[in-house]
Amino acid sequence: MRKTQVAILGATGMIGQRFIEMLEDHPLFSIEGLYASERSEGKKLADVLKVRDYEFKEETLGLEIRNTNPKDIAKRARVAFVGLPSDVAGPVETELAANGAAVFSNAGAHRMDPEVPILIPEVNPEHLMSVRGQSTFSNGGFIVTNANCSTTGAALPLHPINEKFRLKEVFISTYQALSGAGYPGVPSLDALGNVVPYIGGEEEKMELELGKILGSYENRTFTPAGFRTYANCARVPVIDGHLESVILRTEDEASAEDIIRVMEDFRGEPQKRKLPSAPFQPIIVRRENNRPQPAIDVFAGGAGRAKGMAATVGRVRKKDDCIKMFLLSHNTLRGGAGGSVLNAELAQSKGLL
Amino acid sequence: MRKTQVAILGATGMIGQRFIEMLEDHPLFSIEGLYASERSEGKKLADVLKVRDYEFKEETLGLEIRNTNPKDIAKRARVAFVGLPSDVAGPVETELAANGAAVFSNAGAHRMDPEVPILIPEVNPEHLMSVRGQSTFSNGGFIVTNANCSTTGAALPLHPINEKFRLKEVFISTYQALSGAGYPGVPSLDALGNVVPYIGGEEEKMELELGKILGSYENRTFTPAGFRTYANCARVPVIDGHLESVILRTEDEASAEDIIRVMEDFRGEPQKRKLPSAPFQPIIVRRENNRPQPAIDVFAGGAGRAKGMAATVGRVRKKDDCIKMFLLSHNTLRGGAGGSVLNAELAQSKGLL
Amino acid sequence: MRKTQVAILGATGMIGQRFIEMLEDHPLFSIEGLYASERSEGKKLADVLKVRDYEFKEETLGLEIRNTNPKDIAKRARVAFVGLPSDVAGPVETELAANGAAVFSNAGAHRMDPEVPILIPEVNPEHLMSVRGQSTFSNGGFIVTNANCSTTGAALPLHPINEKFRLKEVFISTYQALSGAGYPGVPSLDALGNVVPYIGGEEEKMELELGKILGSYENRTFTPAGFRTYANCARVPVIDGHLESVILRTEDEASAEDIIRVMEDFRGEPQKRKLPSAPFQPIIVRRENNRPQPAIDVFAGGAGRAKGMAATVGRVRKKDDCIKMFLLSHNTLRGGAGGSVLNAELAQSKGLL
Amino acid sequence: MRKTQVAILGATGMIGQRFIEMLEDHPLFSIEGLYASERSEGKKLADVLKVRDYEFKEETLGLEIRNTNPKDIAKRARVAFVGLPSDVAGPVETELAANGAAVFSNAGAHRMDPEVPILIPEVNPEHLMSVRGQSTFSNGGFIVTNANCSTTGAALPLHPINEKFRLKEVFISTYQALSGAGYPGVPSLDALGNVVPYIGGEEEKMELELGKILGSYENRTFTPAGFRTYANCARVPVIDGHLESVILRTEDEASAEDIIRVMEDFRGEPQKRKLPSAPFQPIIVRRENNRPQPAIDVFAGGAGRAKGMAATVGRVRKKDDCIKMFLLSHNTLRGGAGGSVLNAELAQSKGLL
Repeated sequence: MRKTQVAILGATGMIGQRFIEMLEDHPLFSIEGLYASERSEGKKLADVLKVRDYEFKEETLGLEIRNTNPKDIAKRARVAFVGLPSDVAGPVETELAANGAAVFSNAGAHRMDPEVPILIPEVNPEHLMSVRGQSTFSNGGFIVTNANCSTTGAALPLHPINEKFRLKEVFISTYQALSGAGYPGVPSLDALGNVVPYIGGEEEKMELELGKILGSYENRTFTPAGFRTYANCARVPVIDGHLESVILRTEDEASAEDIIRVMEDFRGEPQKRKLPSAPFQPIIVRRENNRPQPAIDVFAGGAGRAKGMAATVGRVRKKDDCIKMFLLSHNTLRGGAGGSVLNAELAQSKGLL
Repeated sequence: MRKTQVAILGATGMIGQRFIEMLEDHPLFSIEGLYASERSEGKKLADVLKVRDYEFKEETLGLEIRNTNPKDIAKRARVAFVGLPSDVAGPVETELAANGAAVFSNAGAHRMDPEVPILIPEVNPEHLMSVRGQSTFSNGGFIVTNANCSTTGAALPLHPINEKFRLKEVFISTYQALSGAGYPGVPSLDALGNVVPYIGGEEEKMELELGKILGSYENRTFTPAGFRTYANCARVPVIDGHLESVILRTEDEASAEDIIRVMEDFRGEPQKRKLPSAPFQPIIVRRENNRPQPAIDVFAGGAGRAKGMAATVGRVRKKDDCIKMFLLSHNTLRGGAGGSVLNAELAQSKGLL
Repeated sequence: MRKTQVAILGATGMIGQRFIEMLEDHPLFSIEGLYASERSEGKKLADVLKVRDYEFKEETLGLEIRNTNPKDIAKRARVAFVGLPSDVAGPVETELAANGAAVFSNAGAHRMDPEVPILIPEVNPEHLMSVRGQSTFSNGGFIVTNANCSTTGAALPLHPINEKFRLKEVFISTYQALSGAGYPGVPSLDALGNVVPYIGGEEEKMELELGKILGSYENRTFTPAGFRTYANCARVPVIDGHLESVILRTEDEASAEDIIRVMEDFRGEPQKRKLPSAPFQPIIVRRENNRPQPAIDVFAGGAGRAKGMAATVGRVRKKDDCIKMFLLSHNTLRGGAGGSVLNAELAQSKGLL
Repeated sequence: MRKTQVAILGATGMIGQRFIEMLEDHPLFSIEGLYASERSEGKKLADVLKVRDYEFKEETLGLEIRNTNPKDIAKRARVAFVGLPSDVAGPVETELAANGAAVFSNAGAHRMDPEVPILIPEVNPEHLMSVRGQSTFSNGGFIVTNANCSTTGAALPLHPINEKFRLKEVFISTYQALSGAGYPGVPSLDALGNVVPYIGGEEEKMELELGKILGSYENRTFTPAGFRTYANCARVPVIDGHLESVILRTEDEASAEDIIRVMEDFRGEPQKRKLPSAPFQPIIVRRENNRPQPAIDVFAGGAGRAKGMAATVGRVRKKDDCIKMFLLSHNTLRGGAGGSVLNAELAQSKGLL
């Protein structure tokens, strides 16, 4: 099979480089080129390296960064993975789609657009079909977004709970990693030995996106799920891995053991279709009393491509009518580039590429 | 005025040494002696120093640690401040009270006892009278406890909200400092760049103690407050200062501004009586969008003795019928030794010593 | 006595604010105004606060930042304390001096100029006289610099050793704090759990400045000291306090105890003249086997104004003909703003202001 | 080929578990059993897991820990890898060898024994022959040690420099990782945001061991190399990876480029014999101006078994007659378990097992 040509935009940033990591030697996709702003034009990946815990191949490190010209990119690549900042990403993605590219974006610019899905293949694969409603779809162009990093980590475990016991309300407090702010991101004088209880726009994103993702898509309309989310977001001195404290109520009664079982047993489309980046088990439930921990569980998901693609849940307990638990996911893999790569794998598998 | 003689138990530990810090040159109390286990007998404070951000006087550093003999201590000192671990503290405190000492304890052993108050002078000064019901009171002995560190930080701001708008339910997620685990406490390999979502017994303590503290004491009976608390507790790599994410509902409607005002305007007994360790304003509300932070706000309260004795609240917002906010307090000062010193000041002021 | 009016330049930066801290309620100096770039004009100190471990007075927090106009400043203030970045500082300082201001600068721009001293009052007070050779001196204008932060920490303990035993060569490896890079400075993704073995220009500064400071000033000429310095500089995840590993050889034989004694006994001009910011003992030698530590010793020097103004030395041992030791000093107090304030106090005491 | 049966002692500790990591699916060795103290008898590896950045196979996690009985172990396994603390290790190793086991130890107990080599296969493979002089050799038993972790990192790059240009003196200051102290090791209250300039016995080990390793073995006698080493050792808040600042002089003149070339070109016995755990290039020299960094370079060496087995050197510069540089190596892989595994591979390759 010929591999699909893919472009990576924002290749000098943390998310852009996670895209490169996940697309090196990908069985379905072949990296056509790396793109960033004019400032980095001509530099090699090796010169602008940000990812530290993955060893790129020599050949990949030698790839030259090109200036981002959406029209050109759309000609050269069928798929564009976008790791640009949201403000830049918006118009670039519109132009890419207008020129026929299939856009898989980590940026927030189009997430709440009427016919753009926030896709998590295990959670709402049926939302993917909304792209058919995008005006550019007739000539092959469309936009698919992945969720905000902290939203993804929560959506995965909440989905099977919602399916079975109908969520009523969810109270989330986050312990978010520094890599979520990109590079240079948070100054070390603010981060070291400290917690910053504010991440601009994050709480609003979680509260809105969770509703859209766990909601329905019918008659060309997204209808948000019925439960309410209340989020308090904070940054902690951790490199990778968003931990979240979750306290929730369901409409239908469920014991802690019920909740654990429904998460552990859950498998979604990526597992059924054996997509290359799909973790064998999307939600791992730990029974130890002090897990999940970023330092231990951040890469859960399996070896190779699925590394860092599972969410880990722990300390599931019931008090009165509330379920209390903690969850963790890798914010730049599952909650970033990895999410979009899985989205593209699903789209390919469904014949959209 | 002759100062009251006070003994400090657990003087080799973090809390014990915060006691010493707060009692050096105290206007009402004079340190009679430092006590710890037999193992440390004869050592000087200088040899077992744990507190780093306070400079003790030479004279204090030279004080010798003595072995803990409750009967002897009760003879030599009117007041015993207890910074021992809970399991050791229980029987020691019972014996101290039986021998006529007024015990002010940071340990959890007697907190839920029928006639022992968990006292926070700004919150429930009337609970202090419960000591009259203790069987040892007739010969001068009694036990007063301060709350668990994370409970204290929450109780201060929640109290005026509860008084005015009647709390219905409170969802708390904590970001707790390493000093809360004492010394050696958390291994650095577990703490650095990580979050541990488990602190043994902490959630149960918060859920129980908050009810008792904000409840009533009448007819020799403690009746817990009517609201429910749901806590998820985690340890973060911060030296001092427990940050807490709080989402709450009240029975009576209140805007974010109402909630802010009631906290800002609040003054309690320690402020009215001008107790030596009382902060001028017990709850400080920050309007900046990224506060409170442990690195900036942990010592809020004022200069001198009141340093670290205020709670700081920030990011007070309303969503639907919920109030969201963050709060912070110094876990070994306000939430530990400082709390018990303030308790003893109240007791002295009320003629109990 | 009327206090001397002083201006603070670079008031939005870390060093500038340490200047404000050290000059609040100063017995000799009165803050005339705070200055920074046009961008911050009209902001209050409270709006741009960087220093976290010192509580400024309300009145000081309300001071407005003005745009830096050297001519105006020289009219309004006798003294200008400069906390600007080196590239900006150079021409500003020249113009300040040309207009009659006495400039005390933390910037490196003029440090190696022929008649500009790098002054450490305990070490080379006689160098201050070099300002008489500056062309602007006749109308009151002159420039005095303090040393680079890591140089200051080393110069203090090395000076009495050099005086008594004549240094031959010094091998220094630094463990430098994050605050030395200013704000935002080092990205947290680079700092957390890591060491960066490079600080631009730092090693060259140490190697050159140590020679000039410990050298002589005679016949209007600075002659560097005869020993050689070899420096390797690295940044560690510490907020404040530069630790340095020092291995040295002297021309004249000295035991470890000799070296300890000469450092401990040392007192300089600031001690003799009882300057307001002078530590009682400029070099503190610890006998414990694990000191100095940034977390414990960074504020050594005394209470009040002298806090953080002493260097701490520890682990002084001899192997073969080498002395091995560690030293520590506060990089933005003693090694920054505090150094220049002490310089101005010496100048005032010598009748130069 | 039948694999050699190997026992792992100290299997509950950090080094013991690095042994397990490096011996899982080893092409030459097969894990016969895991051993620790009686306290852990019967526990599974999964219950006592310390290593976080490596995913053990399910089968390995299920291995049961046995009590350490040297006589039994020597019967069941040809090779014993020892990750025990030094004080325990000494007599155990003696007994293992007496009973015919080939002991490869990370402990310091026998390092300076007359006929026990401190072996680094790239540096002093000829020292291995000293085991023939051990009294137990006739019945197959012998002891080989690997160097102390910080010594290994220094010995690798220093060896080719010494061979070519003859080292005269070496000044080393270390920035050592927390994992070097084992688990629980350093309390987080001491480690976070701090540097501790003391590691018990470390400096003496470096100064002695470097001499023995780079020295000669002839006529059944170890003669230390002629150069002198001066070490100052400190602990920094880094999880894995010892960074070292090195300033050195050679007898024969060498430019920085000469030094770089001799390190880069160096290949040793493990490379020639293609031992399974040998890195392709034992010393990697970085030309960037801010390397090596623990967070980036700690796993240098290659994929698979050689991961973390190379030393990385950077910032090689010349000043006067001194070479200044920084070096880094993984303290529990190359500087610990990995070193001993490589030693055993060399022994096997030379027919000693």
